[in-house]
Amino acid sequence: MITIAVDCMGGDYGPAVTLPACAAFLASHPDAHLLLVGLPEAMAKLPASIDRARIQVIAASEVVTMDDPLEVALRRKRDSSMRVAINQVKDGAAQAAVSAGNTGALMAIARFVLKTLDGIDRPAIAGQMPNVTGGATTMLDLGANVDCSAEHLLQFAVMGSALVVAVSGKESPTVGLLNIGEEAIKGNEVIKQAGALLRAAAANGDLNFKGNVEGNDIFKGVVDLVVCDGFVGNVALKSSEGLASMVSTLIKQAFGRNILTKMAAIVAYPVLSAFKKRVDHRRYNGAALLGLRGLVFKSHGSADAFAFEQALVRAYDAAHNQLLDNVRARIAHAAPLMAAKGAAALSATPA
Amino acid sequence: MITIAVDCMGGDYGPAVTLPACAAFLASHPDAHLLLVGLPEAMAKLPASIDRARIQVIAASEVVTMDDPLEVALRRKRDSSMRVAINQVKDGAAQAAVSAGNTGALMAIARFVLKTLDGIDRPAIAGQMPNVTGGATTMLDLGANVDCSAEHLLQFAVMGSALVVAVSGKESPTVGLLNIGEEAIKGNEVIKQAGALLRAAAANGDLNFKGNVEGNDIFKGVVDLVVCDGFVGNVALKSSEGLASMVSTLIKQAFGRNILTKMAAIVAYPVLSAFKKRVDHRRYNGAALLGLRGLVFKSHGSADAFAFEQALVRAYDAAHNQLLDNVRARIAHAAPLMAAKGAAALSATPA
Repeated sequence: MITIAVDCMGGDYGPAVTLPACAAFLASHPDAHLLLVGLPEAMAKLPASIDRARIQVIAASEVVTMDDPLEVALRRKRDSSMRVAINQVKDGAAQAAVSAGNTGALMAIARFVLKTLDGIDRPAIAGQMPNVTGGATTMLDLGANVDCSAEHLLQFAVMGSALVVAVSGKESPTVGLLNIGEEAIKGNEVIKQAGALLRAAAANGDLNFKGNVEGNDIFKGVVDLVVCDGFVGNVALKSSEGLASMVSTLIKQAFGRNILTKMAAIVAYPVLSAFKKRVDHRRYNGAALLGLRGLVFKSHGSADAFAFEQALVRAYDAAHNQLLDNVRARIAHAAPLMAAKGAAALSATPA
Repeated sequence: MITIAVDCMGGDYGPAVTLPACAAFLASHPDAHLLLVGLPEAMAKLPASIDRARIQVIAASEVVTMDDPLEVALRRKRDSSMRVAINQVKDGAAQAAVSAGNTGALMAIARFVLKTLDGIDRPAIAGQMPNVTGGATTMLDLGANVDCSAEHLLQFAVMGSALVVAVSGKESPTVGLLNIGEEAIKGNEVIKQAGALLRAAAANGDLNFKGNVEGNDIFKGVVDLVVCDGFVGNVALKSSEGLASMVSTLIKQAFGRNILTKMAAIVAYPVLSAFKKRVDHRRYNGAALLGLRGLVFKSHGSADAFAFEQALVRAYDAAHNQLLDNVRARIAHAAPLMAAKGAAALSATPA
């Protein structure tokens, strides 16, 4: 049995989206239980289809909004649905928590409540992007850490590898270091040091490191996991989202221009739908907060019920496949290189 | 009269692409002259359509290849077509040079031959990306500088503004600082300092600074110019290229699946062509190397004749609209803030 705590109030639509998603998720996961956390009045009307034998409603008296400063979310709203959900993980009542709320608040509360794992300086956010092979490329950090050392990037690589194993079932996920050229001499100092650390970790059997990758490789599916600092990862993610949104708008405009193009749209509709399904970002919803002493997944704030359900599935898969134990074991194995001065030690000895 | 020196040997296809592009460019620009630089044997067969009254062939004995290490390109191949083309700018024989060759070599040679402008620490590469408004967003740096200070980002903003004025005719281009959130408190230390410097420059009338922008804003056309360091800019550019390429592949796959989808493709073809034209990256070919004592434009290595012609047009527009004088004047005006310790001076005084 896997139990997941759900912040039902988070995201742009709150219970209107999260509750139907929970009902659908339970229907397809017979051994799952859900702890539904929210304001009592909002939780009063559960969907008729939800399996009441496998849920428990837990009351929270506050909600973290998208505009709440971190301090308010963390210090003042101590009975927020987000925090109560994370508390379930801390207390062992749930194996994972899922929220579509404010990312900064979720990371801050998760870090405060759960604490970071031994050997990890900074938790990171790992998400998936579709690639042209039909699979997904996992990428981290997507925005939690704006300045990273080489050791942080190694920590991300180790944690991310465990995530890919847990949610995709790949045994030895390939890892790429995001850079501006494939040659080892490219990039800034931190990236060059990180490359050296990742190669050393690969030599130790900690990672399946394939070397540098470039931005376009994310969508080629050249590696299973792409590692970068949170600033770069966030820019890459949002640039891609922006381009995807532009393409979608322009395709709609082109087909909506006049009666002839609208007729063409009717003919092309099934094909364009099939294409859209291939790149449907909702299928990849559910980013992992890695490096904490508990599993927390973040759904996109604008997720619909289908998308939120995917985040629940991702959390379920992670819990079911013992992601946390896997992360701990990998960190322990790679610990000598991950210590704060791993890169320095490495550069002091011949490669 | 505007004279442009063309490295006819650069790029994946060399003269097979550059010479037809030169012919087409001359046909649409009656006051333009071209200095065609290349190996004599490669330049022996000029296109019949080229206006021979407005060209001069200049022999070079070597070619910089895509694989040449910087040192080879810079120190050994002193008579390369790339270098000879840039020498024309240095000697005043041409107002701009265009090459589709190796970017690193082009930047290194241009910097060595032309030198940087007073007040500029590092030249940068500025390119254009299509946006959903139908216009283009200019962005720099796209990869020349992997580590940038706040002052460098200010220099990029000032030079980029001059470029937008010259190639798009906008009088007061809006500038955004690429960040991972719109609030001024977001980002790493360099970005926060750069934000303060850009605000100060805007208060001085040096810039039309609009604040932070995020990756998706590049394609929304929220601002005319996006400023970032070369690592981030290169990742954003290549990620977008990767996504665009994936979309194109998947659309082709979807329409090529079976006889029905192929029939739908025939009906949808005119619409998809119109869409493709809107986002055709070839139209935006031609990145400016800014911060040098001369104009140099870089074409994509894989450019076809149409794309290479756009790079020539961009160089022509820049020369015709006195980009270099404009950059110089703007730098002089912003000089007090751009000095190496601009940010430090600023942070020592109340904002």
